[in-house]
Amino acid sequence: MTVAIADGERTADPAAGRTRTARHLGIDTGQEPVVYLHRDSQVVHSEGFATETRVQVTAGARTILATLNVVTSSLLGIEDVGLSDAAWQRLAVAEGAGVEVAHPPPLDSLGLVRAKIYGRRLEADSLDAIVRDIAELRYSDIYLASFITACAGGRMDHQEVVNLTLAMIRAGERLRWDAPRVFDKHSVGGLPGNRTSLIVVPIVAAAGLLMPKTSSRAITSPAGTADTMETLAPVDLDLAAMRRVVEREGGCLVWGGRARLSPADDVLIRVERPLDLDSPAQLVASVLSKKAAAGATHVLIDLPVGTTAKVRSYGEAERLSGHLRDVGAAIGLEVLPVVTHGAQPIGRGIGPALEARDALAVLQGGVEAPADLRERALLLAGHLFEMAGAVPAGSGQGMARVILEDGRAWKKFQAICEAQGGMRVPPVAPFTCPVPAQRAGHVGVIDNRRLGRVAKLAGAPHDPAAGLELHVRLGDQVTAGQPLYTIHAAAPGELDYALAYAESADGIIGMQDA
Amino acid sequence: MTVAIADGERTADPAAGRTRTARHLGIDTGQEPVVYLHRDSQVVHSEGFATETRVQVTAGARTILATLNVVTSSLLGIEDVGLSDAAWQRLAVAEGAGVEVAHPPPLDSLGLVRAKIYGRRLEADSLDAIVRDIAELRYSDIYLASFITACAGGRMDHQEVVNLTLAMIRAGERLRWDAPRVFDKHSVGGLPGNRTSLIVVPIVAAAGLLMPKTSSRAITSPAGTADTMETLAPVDLDLAAMRRVVEREGGCLVWGGRARLSPADDVLIRVERPLDLDSPAQLVASVLSKKAAAGATHVLIDLPVGTTAKVRSYGEAERLSGHLRDVGAAIGLEVLPVVTHGAQPIGRGIGPALEARDALAVLQGGVEAPADLRERALLLAGHLFEMAGAVPAGSGQGMARVILEDGRAWKKFQAICEAQGGMRVPPVAPFTCPVPAQRAGHVGVIDNRRLGRVAKLAGAPHDPAAGLELHVRLGDQVTAGQPLYTIHAAAPGELDYALAYAESADGIIGMQDA
Repeated sequence: MTVAIADGERTADPAAGRTRTARHLGIDTGQEPVVYLHRDSQVVHSEGFATETRVQVTAGARTILATLNVVTSSLLGIEDVGLSDAAWQRLAVAEGAGVEVAHPPPLDSLGLVRAKIYGRRLEADSLDAIVRDIAELRYSDIYLASFITACAGGRMDHQEVVNLTLAMIRAGERLRWDAPRVFDKHSVGGLPGNRTSLIVVPIVAAAGLLMPKTSSRAITSPAGTADTMETLAPVDLDLAAMRRVVEREGGCLVWGGRARLSPADDVLIRVERPLDLDSPAQLVASVLSKKAAAGATHVLIDLPVGTTAKVRSYGEAERLSGHLRDVGAAIGLEVLPVVTHGAQPIGRGIGPALEARDALAVLQGGVEAPADLRERALLLAGHLFEMAGAVPAGSGQGMARVILEDGRAWKKFQAICEAQGGMRVPPVAPFTCPVPAQRAGHVGVIDNRRLGRVAKLAGAPHDPAAGLELHVRLGDQVTAGQPLYTIHAAAPGELDYALAYAESADGIIGMQDA
Repeated sequence: MTVAIADGERTADPAAGRTRTARHLGIDTGQEPVVYLHRDSQVVHSEGFATETRVQVTAGARTILATLNVVTSSLLGIEDVGLSDAAWQRLAVAEGAGVEVAHPPPLDSLGLVRAKIYGRRLEADSLDAIVRDIAELRYSDIYLASFITACAGGRMDHQEVVNLTLAMIRAGERLRWDAPRVFDKHSVGGLPGNRTSLIVVPIVAAAGLLMPKTSSRAITSPAGTADTMETLAPVDLDLAAMRRVVEREGGCLVWGGRARLSPADDVLIRVERPLDLDSPAQLVASVLSKKAAAGATHVLIDLPVGTTAKVRSYGEAERLSGHLRDVGAAIGLEVLPVVTHGAQPIGRGIGPALEARDALAVLQGGVEAPADLRERALLLAGHLFEMAGAVPAGSGQGMARVILEDGRAWKKFQAICEAQGGMRVPPVAPFTCPVPAQRAGHVGVIDNRRLGRVAKLAGAPHDPAAGLELHVRLGDQVTAGQPLYTIHAAAPGELDYALAYAESADGIIGMQDA
């Protein structure tokens, strides 16, 4: 039977837009919100919904986009709306509350992503539209994967990266500090154990400079600065709490995600992680948008170079330095790139708690403290002092050393931890196992990437105590059977998994004949 | 407490790999299999699993890769393994059967996708490895989205497309027919209503040529040939059933997905659909791998050109023709590209059942049959007769016309439908609504893409009866208020949604002053 509906008589189906009952299903679907509707639900029929349809869910004043999964069992009442953990949190509803499910408005910015894939340049307004939708969590994971891939591999020019950076800043909060100059630092990843921020921030803040440091969690590495700091103090502070810490101590070491600084960056990072993609364009936009949004005016960027670090050659570091300086200048940031050696991990630990212990040893001035971590932190802090004009060129490192050695940095670090919510003792892994040298020789090469992978397979950064402790450095003479490193894990399954990989992957620590 | 486990003493944790109880949760997650484990499950702790971890699930001889969702409620017993519909079907287990969940081996081909993103060419063995993993459903949706994006926008050269095509053929079944020459055709999409296969196959088969036609479902269009044919007869035939039909009738019109012909293509299409990406490289590899795997030796490819068709210019059609011919030659297929006009839809219907009715009218020789669809089908059938050497050049179309007009094609079509499982009457949508001209004038332009979008918003191809019926053609004189087309929908919600878009999107059918 065909029912012709004349114009004007069209009325919405009573089922469409009707309020349904929210059910917290208790399913963690990750970042992407998922909504569950029963196959026999009226709205599924009236709206033509199917699994993977993108739907708009409204509860009170809050509206989110989600991906639909159709339920074919009695898991859910026919007129219930099941919500995944991400959907539940973002809608902030109570069990049984009323929600509405409808078709979302068309997501026009996807057409701009397609244009980019086909080689068109993205203009400022296009990037604004894309980044706004990403920050508002309107992109499903496959849209995010496509956008990240389309912009990777050198497919963004200078102006696009500038505009992407500005769009990422605009899509979130922007902090203002009551100071003419605000200092910050960032180390480009890929070098395990490079946890200098935990030492640089207290040195610089102890000298009276303002350094409100926000960090991200690991993208593809076994630990980010926020993961490491979290084993020592709370890092999940809101803006007001962060401001109180900085006003009191002149510096902080917090996770930037909670503060909604460049929130699109956090969304992108969650998909870059499984893709293991972190392209120069995204890197520059990610780092500088976070720093500018955090209110920095002067930013030092540490670029460790090594064949298995993120930056693989000095030529690449030079190019990246140029990008960072140029994009910084275009958005009003003074950027100082510092190229450092990255042939081997810094310190001994790899993994949040193990790296935290290295930083503590340096701050406390212990004789067993890793010298490479200390010297690198002093180099960077020195550059910041010179950038600030606090000392003549060449004298910054000496000033930093005095502040570390006389205990002011350690005192400042403890004060920052207390201000952030109280200092903690990093956890210790219950399961460990040494990995011995197969033969005698001296250590010729260390593969940072595969060593990082061992630490990740052992559970880092998900298990903060997991990772590995390195016993040798480049050039060391070792005998057959001597432990090269010790794997730390929170569970035997992960220990086995990491060990199986360590044993199968030849040359993670490459031996040369003595 | 640190438990040092000496080498040799390491034993797998008793929880790891232990058999757990399969539960069919009744959640349709689409193509990507999802596994649900309770947060307090031993395997989650011992293996360090978290939401979005990729896991390997084994039941008897079957093993799949799946994405983990951690359950935080009592939805699932603590030692149960919940399986989504896709996981359940692919494991083919019974409720309560034993399954094991473990870390999967590393998916090495992802490194090759990353190399492509960074601009490296993909060699034959790399494409084999990637396509094999895709065909075996080892890629999550975000990996698929990244691979599709990395290969889109002209980033594959000739040899890469040849190797991709060969890899796609090798990853599935390949049919062999007991005949020296096997004919096939394909129309590149983007032109709504271009359903010539339903007419060409019976004409060609009635003349004694072998034409075992496999079609795909819609990628980004409101109907694919398989969707349309399915409203007239079963298309979901396995290889043995398809072979019986072809041996009896000389031709068939079946869905190619069930036959495991180029199965990676079907996987890729499911992610290309929401991305709305269908790049030339993927298009050539998709079309030719399907045709070669189906055993074709001679393939005609219809390339409709129009500013709003998939192929937008004659220059682009020329380039695509060259690609198709060259890649065809490299894999041993004789390919004849035929460039046709694509400025407006073919026939009247857009949507599976509405397009099927147009094809039936042509086959039955009704006076109301759309002449454009008939003439286009005769042109293509004629080219196939000339390609086969059945008639001298220039006489193919005449031969096709005779077979259509004397009723042999209609008889053959009915016989094919019966052989495929029985002829059906296409469904009729219960809700319809006309879209009137806003002003008088003549029809100057028809936007195929946005018209296709109206049909999709109305529910096509998910609802086979949904779509639209076009009442005007380019150049027609219309008065204000005269219906331009009528939307058909299975539900009022979809009718409203399509109508709202039709009314908001200006110029889908563009009027010029009379």
